[in-house]
Amino acid sequence: MARLNTFYLPPDQWPLKPGDTVELIGDEARHMLTVLRTGSDQTVRLFDGEGNDGLFRVENAGKKRAILEALELNEHTRPQNGLTLAIGWGKSKRRNYLFEKAVELQADGIAFWEAVRSQGQQPDSSKETWMDKCVQAAKQCGNPFIPEIHSLSDGVAGVVEFARDFDRCYLAWESDTATELLSPNHLKSGRSLIVIGPEGGMEDDEARRLMDSGFIAVTLGKSILRWETAAAYCLSLGWFAKQETA
Amino acid sequence: MARLNTFYLPPDQWPLKPGDTVELIGDEARHMLTVLRTGSDQTVRLFDGEGNDGLFRVENAGKKRAILEALELNEHTRPQNGLTLAIGWGKSKRRNYLFEKAVELQADGIAFWEAVRSQGQQPDSSKETWMDKCVQAAKQCGNPFIPEIHSLSDGVAGVVEFARDFDRCYLAWESDTATELLSPNHLKSGRSLIVIGPEGGMEDDEARRLMDSGFIAVTLGKSILRWETAAAYCLSLGWFAKQETA
Repeated sequence: MARLNTFYLPPDQWPLKPGDTVELIGDEARHMLTVLRTGSDQTVRLFDGEGNDGLFRVENAGKKRAILEALELNEHTRPQNGLTLAIGWGKSKRRNYLFEKAVELQADGIAFWEAVRSQGQQPDSSKETWMDKCVQAAKQCGNPFIPEIHSLSDGVAGVVEFARDFDRCYLAWESDTATELLSPNHLKSGRSLIVIGPEGGMEDDEARRLMDSGFIAVTLGKSILRWETAAAYCLSLGWFAKQETA
Repeated sequence: MARLNTFYLPPDQWPLKPGDTVELIGDEARHMLTVLRTGSDQTVRLFDGEGNDGLFRVENAGKKRAILEALELNEHTRPQNGLTLAIGWGKSKRRNYLFEKAVELQADGIAFWEAVRSQGQQPDSSKETWMDKCVQAAKQCGNPFIPEIHSLSDGVAGVVEFARDFDRCYLAWESDTATELLSPNHLKSGRSLIVIGPEGGMEDDEARRLMDSGFIAVTLGKSILRWETAAAYCLSLGWFAKQETA
């Protein structure tokens, strides 16, 4: 079966039951109506990024908005284990890769933090373009869950505060101190957080403060990985752990 | 210690013993002399991409070439297990990402193959720019081994022929037929080959022919991964398997 075209409907507009109608507006409507020329009576897939998706029939295709009727609604259960990455902020042009890989490999979240060696000004809150990038990736790969994106302030202290909601907290550290190899077993149960340094790496003092706060230092192996490779690697082990326990 | 600047010296020019001199020319010399303004008596690291690296003293820094004396030479042993990916050719702009990740996660090789759904003309042989990309990545991450890059002709038959040199051959297939989850254990010993389809996926017939030739069909999990994410994921499991057995 050819895959149905998918569009994003914000969670606060998600219908309660089949037969309910919803309205698609903005970029998603433009994409549906103008780019893909979707007409009345066609069936599409909508999702809300929080685990809901379903089949919808286009009832009314306008120029800038569409009315759709819910035909079949599914609520996906969030896996019992999940991974969030806290990544040192940087100016990198490769941030979009990170969002894409986080969606495809179904991370729970991405949090940026201000490390001593972070370059450039970290925005106070998650940017709309980041969410857009995640939505596009989710449409492509079919992941019903969009990772939560956070922008943490206050350096290491902000990470420590953020870490309170997690069951397991790791610190990926390029150092002789970190001898434990990060393994899928570390990510098998509960909510895990892995802290990754910015481009240029974490300072020793930052790593020590995280360890003093209970983070376990792990190594990603004997290679100097770029920050986005380190991220993709952690996401890959997280994805494997999720599949193994599914 | 600050990392030493690294330059690539082709294997056929690698010195036999400390005290021997070598000549660096071309792009690498330009990078050393013009971009990084390396002068006489400075110490740098050279590597040959086949497991040799060493410290060298600049004896003579010309405008377009440098003479260097070998101070200390190391020969790295290739790990007993290794991963090569055979990836369906495509027009993707993301090929450079693949080379980078293959180098950082120390793949043995990358082979492109012509799948039925491959788009664009696959070159007959590995392109020089690909090797350049790998060299740049290897300089950055310190991997002394550059992956071998192959351009296979003749579709599935070419892949089957290529597979003869491997101990384990897998086929990453998005299908209900593939129920075995690819795991680091699959990559723990010997030389492994994983075939990945092109953008748009493999045709059923291609997958069946590979399985008939002894390839084991594996799944990468319940997500529709882009080809370069599938590649990064396989490389990550391969890297983990390598670290675990190191």
